[in-house]
Amino acid sequence: MTPDTSTIPGYIIYRDDANGSSPNEIVIPKPPPHPLDQLTVEEISVAAKLIRNYVHPQTVKFNCLTLREPRKGEYQAFQAGSGPRPQRRAFAIVIERGSGQVSEFLVSLSQGGAVESRKNVTDVGPMLTLEDLDICERVARADAQVAAACREVGIADMSRVFFDGWAIGHDARWGFERRLQQGLAYYRAAPLDNQYAHPLDFTVIIDTEREEVLAVDVRRVNGERVPPPLEEHNYLPQYVGDGYDHHRLKPIDIVQPQGVSFEMRGNELSWAGYKMHIGFNFREGIVISDVRMHDMHEQRERSLFNRISVVEMVVPYGNPTAPHQKKHAFDVGEYGTGLMTNSLKLGCDCKGAIHYLDAVMSISDGSPAVLKNAVCIHEEDNGLLYKHTDYRDGTVIAARDRRLVVSQIITAANYEYGFYHTFSLDGTYRLEVKLTGMLNTYCLHPSEAAAPYGTEVARGLDAHNHQHIFSLRVDPAIDGPRNSVLEHDALPSEHPVGSVANPFGNGFYSKATLLQDAREGMRDYRHETSRSWSIVNPHRLNPSSKKPVGYKILNNSCPPLLAQPGSVVRARAAFARHTLWVLPYRDDELFPAGDYVCQSTGVPGHVDNPTIEDWAARGGNIADADIVCFIQFGLTHFPRTEDFPVMPAEPVSVMLRAANFFVKNPALWVPPTTVFKDTTSRDAFPASGAPVAEGDATSCCSEGPVSSKL
Amino acid sequence: MTPDTSTIPGYIIYRDDANGSSPNEIVIPKPPPHPLDQLTVEEISVAAKLIRNYVHPQTVKFNCLTLREPRKGEYQAFQAGSGPRPQRRAFAIVIERGSGQVSEFLVSLSQGGAVESRKNVTDVGPMLTLEDLDICERVARADAQVAAACREVGIADMSRVFFDGWAIGHDARWGFERRLQQGLAYYRAAPLDNQYAHPLDFTVIIDTEREEVLAVDVRRVNGERVPPPLEEHNYLPQYVGDGYDHHRLKPIDIVQPQGVSFEMRGNELSWAGYKMHIGFNFREGIVISDVRMHDMHEQRERSLFNRISVVEMVVPYGNPTAPHQKKHAFDVGEYGTGLMTNSLKLGCDCKGAIHYLDAVMSISDGSPAVLKNAVCIHEEDNGLLYKHTDYRDGTVIAARDRRLVVSQIITAANYEYGFYHTFSLDGTYRLEVKLTGMLNTYCLHPSEAAAPYGTEVARGLDAHNHQHIFSLRVDPAIDGPRNSVLEHDALPSEHPVGSVANPFGNGFYSKATLLQDAREGMRDYRHETSRSWSIVNPHRLNPSSKKPVGYKILNNSCPPLLAQPGSVVRARAAFARHTLWVLPYRDDELFPAGDYVCQSTGVPGHVDNPTIEDWAARGGNIADADIVCFIQFGLTHFPRTEDFPVMPAEPVSVMLRAANFFVKNPALWVPPTTVFKDTTSRDAFPASGAPVAEGDATSCCSEGPVSSKL
Repeated sequence: MTPDTSTIPGYIIYRDDANGSSPNEIVIPKPPPHPLDQLTVEEISVAAKLIRNYVHPQTVKFNCLTLREPRKGEYQAFQAGSGPRPQRRAFAIVIERGSGQVSEFLVSLSQGGAVESRKNVTDVGPMLTLEDLDICERVARADAQVAAACREVGIADMSRVFFDGWAIGHDARWGFERRLQQGLAYYRAAPLDNQYAHPLDFTVIIDTEREEVLAVDVRRVNGERVPPPLEEHNYLPQYVGDGYDHHRLKPIDIVQPQGVSFEMRGNELSWAGYKMHIGFNFREGIVISDVRMHDMHEQRERSLFNRISVVEMVVPYGNPTAPHQKKHAFDVGEYGTGLMTNSLKLGCDCKGAIHYLDAVMSISDGSPAVLKNAVCIHEEDNGLLYKHTDYRDGTVIAARDRRLVVSQIITAANYEYGFYHTFSLDGTYRLEVKLTGMLNTYCLHPSEAAAPYGTEVARGLDAHNHQHIFSLRVDPAIDGPRNSVLEHDALPSEHPVGSVANPFGNGFYSKATLLQDAREGMRDYRHETSRSWSIVNPHRLNPSSKKPVGYKILNNSCPPLLAQPGSVVRARAAFARHTLWVLPYRDDELFPAGDYVCQSTGVPGHVDNPTIEDWAARGGNIADADIVCFIQFGLTHFPRTEDFPVMPAEPVSVMLRAANFFVKNPALWVPPTTVFKDTTSRDAFPASGAPVAEGDATSCCSEGPVSSKL
Repeated sequence: MTPDTSTIPGYIIYRDDANGSSPNEIVIPKPPPHPLDQLTVEEISVAAKLIRNYVHPQTVKFNCLTLREPRKGEYQAFQAGSGPRPQRRAFAIVIERGSGQVSEFLVSLSQGGAVESRKNVTDVGPMLTLEDLDICERVARADAQVAAACREVGIADMSRVFFDGWAIGHDARWGFERRLQQGLAYYRAAPLDNQYAHPLDFTVIIDTEREEVLAVDVRRVNGERVPPPLEEHNYLPQYVGDGYDHHRLKPIDIVQPQGVSFEMRGNELSWAGYKMHIGFNFREGIVISDVRMHDMHEQRERSLFNRISVVEMVVPYGNPTAPHQKKHAFDVGEYGTGLMTNSLKLGCDCKGAIHYLDAVMSISDGSPAVLKNAVCIHEEDNGLLYKHTDYRDGTVIAARDRRLVVSQIITAANYEYGFYHTFSLDGTYRLEVKLTGMLNTYCLHPSEAAAPYGTEVARGLDAHNHQHIFSLRVDPAIDGPRNSVLEHDALPSEHPVGSVANPFGNGFYSKATLLQDAREGMRDYRHETSRSWSIVNPHRLNPSSKKPVGYKILNNSCPPLLAQPGSVVRARAAFARHTLWVLPYRDDELFPAGDYVCQSTGVPGHVDNPTIEDWAARGGNIADADIVCFIQFGLTHFPRTEDFPVMPAEPVSVMLRAANFFVKNPALWVPPTTVFKDTTSRDAFPASGAPVAEGDATSCCSEGPVSSKL
């Protein structure tokens, strides 16, 4: 196969050669891939060929072609040694050329290989790939109506007009007979000019499959066009030039002379007692599976999570004027977090020793596409792990924390999102998302004000209020396969001040409520009670606390969805209506806004495209069961002028932390960096038991120059 | 003077020599100290002598002796060049030996030096110093009743019994005629044994001045003593020994080969466009004053904050049983954050190139005491500053953020708190507090359960529920001296779905409410509206957004105080009843729980000891005025077994971030670490305007080894 790097920036595409050098059948690699490893280039190529042969003489456009992960039971049986190695399988969504029929294929990649099933699905909108977004720009730019709309505001050169392809949200003018995109129009004065400084006042609706413009929606204000804002607001070096101050910040170097502390065997990672598998797919991007930790105290490996990934997000914009109500991007389901991932050789954003993983995806003709350095794995110093000083004698102990970071950065048209999955030495998992990139902007007519639904971030440029709500799916395995979720509310004692049970009024406690059925498994954060949840194994009690071993979900960055009941986005983004959903586990229920998010209506009961609302309405036991949690977090963004022309990164995070899971601080094996027994100690009695050494005054600063005077 | 390092660990005490080598009068240093610099060793020595001479033949115990900062007006006039250099003044609180009379002294340190005033104050409890805490242990250990209480549970060797001196909270048995302490009793099997594994079942009440035991409060359960828990739970290397895994983590070195990027002129710091003064005192610890930033765009220096410090905190425990209701430490006001500060040469907790500042305080005889390396100033890499990729052609730009960290770590008996004041390149100030150290523990009788008011963290050891609520005082100067505070609530549009103003129901906005009077200046966080506040200068509008320039207070980690109305701690900790208080600025109003917190009742109207409740009740205009903000944040801690025997650090933070303060991203001067113009760029039109270079593919990883394979 011939690698092609010219089609999509960052992608290396392996196309079949004319001479047929591509694999015709499966060559099972030795050793065989881990069951959760991405499909290989060869597997994708073979699967695509099998599907093409199957549909012949029809032709199809591949919307995706990816690993179908083995069913959980099958995988776990294999891991436990009680079942066979799961078959490698590919899953593909294809669009039949001509008819537009959407079909789901399941392909066996065992020796020989074969299409196992084809399922036609209806009234669904497959994801918009990067290639689809390119179609939007190409088609819009070439269209006469679009050119006319540009000429009317003085733009004659269509090569200077750019279109960010967006999912349509919902537009009542068309249904699923068309694969719709809305092209948001921008002007550039030069190839690298910041187009978000020059938004145009119209959007273009295109049919992605028929490659035609369906409408040019010009938004006139008092019957007038809005003149394009042409002031320059750039941030690339070509423009900033002398504006940089190269002397103000001296380098901070982070070096790991002995290399990293983690080991990779294929995609299986082990670090500091943790073990996990790092997967990746076109839709979710990073998938972390089979997270376990070696418990030093109990001397056994304990399971934590079967699977962790960001399965959806929604960015509803708050300007009520048409066409802005159609801006509510579901970046995972509508565009694919995997597909939009940055190749980090182009812009690595971590320091220290880095291990990269490549992504293997496919493009519309079924060719495998490799995105080099899609996933960055590295360690970071994480500040204090613990410290204590005895104030009497100055005995000090301090240790430093470390974290493992598995990250990817995506570009969703204007915005960038960095996803940092982190694990630290005390057993904490934290997903931090950093938001940066560009604000989505729109042009203001001189008669308009940005307020209250947006901020005028530069003259004539309106950045609309918006929210970012992410959905983290956690398939827990807290010390075993059957888990429950407890809701915790911090409450004052119910006993009044002066009562026997609460004489001084200071009593407070954490009230735990067991969630029992999926119908009550949708929960909201409460600030008043510092509400949290814990995922517990009710069969294992912590021997000291007598509480079930668990992991606590700490999530106070979870803004309520501000769109009203009855709004389109609220219907489409059912998942974002609650902070937490707990459901019985089902293998195929990964995507809470549906498998097909583009053009979805959110109306419950869609046969081929149920959402979390349908799953929850079905009910089912979630106590002491195989469960799955969808955790929503994010922020509400009222743009500031500081966010323009490029946004300083804004972090938001959610955390899962051991709570009575370990019998004691699980990081006591970490050698302290500072131990000091003061020589002036006024020991009151001779040492007995363990020998008392003077200890070392080891400064953790020894790794860098220490300046007490500058 | 002779340095003495044997009295208090970490302190170097300068005592007057018999030969009179100590200074008798002021020698004004050249150049003179900055008006906000701590008192020098010499200034303390002279001030103490002046006070001793003044009270002669009476003798006094110095409770504190510290800089009296100049009044804000006086200081600002001097800084503006329109007023004289403020006089150096010392402020002291002394306790007359014998009578116990508490007096406040103001001492001029100008040439000659003189006591300016003495004010006797009544019904107040001066802070407990480290020396006072030592008295508690010494007196309790020597007492016969205490020994009898120990013998009753089988402990004969009193040298193995330790007492953590705590403020009493409130105990109706005594009033201000006594300086009370409660000694929490612990056993140690060896000098470095973890005493928090062996709490005893009684507390000792002592009179600090008369050095006598007033009561031994034994808490019997069903008439029985609680046997001391004797299981060993240690974490020092002497005990862990082979438990460390020295090979699991390889070093991460953070080095700054060219040194730090900040400059210190005395205690004035400049870094990355910021300027500020770093002060320190026995009570607040770090005080950051005069924070300004050079606005690269407007080419002028702009003021941000006059003064920032942590002025109070309270840790109410939630076990309603006596004597635990008396555990609600106000660590700032009762013990002094400055006094409890770790000397970081004993346990530096930062990496990279560090600049330390010493603290200069005094001890009870008025001698100056220097705490070396009390304040750590360093820089940290802070991850992504911004990034954007054009998905069409792969053009990438990314820059890295940096933060300046000004930190101190304190030991408050069992607990440690790290205070990290951080400033980052986008103009953000963030105070992060890390909680670590030891849980306060108590012993359980076999018939008792820890739940619901605590957690049994190891057999027989009850760690009680508690909260940590910090009060950050911010004296703002947002682009000038007169500021207002707006409360922001994110709300759905009031217009119903389908209305002309909100046809699709997606409209939402931020409702701003101006706070006008101190009586309405106490505000609570609301999760439902993602409530925030901004401190603005109403006279300066951002030219683009037309909003007043401001800084936003982002604080969603602010648990409500869980003690009920009517409880002692709720009365004493009025500040902790609200997330935010905004008040008219007054020079002397620093400490929201009163200048004297020990034994305070919180009853409003105390003449010598008003609290924030009194200040707010007084009312007064807070709009377009010289104002001050008290921001409460913290967490509710339901102990976990993982927090034992030493707690993994738990962070909590509050943030003030520019909001329409700068006209654009203020960090555009930061040179990008990654710029990449993809060579496969499909530029649609020839470059015009600024020249387009291919750019450099500069990996930010160049500073460390990059391993694509391990």
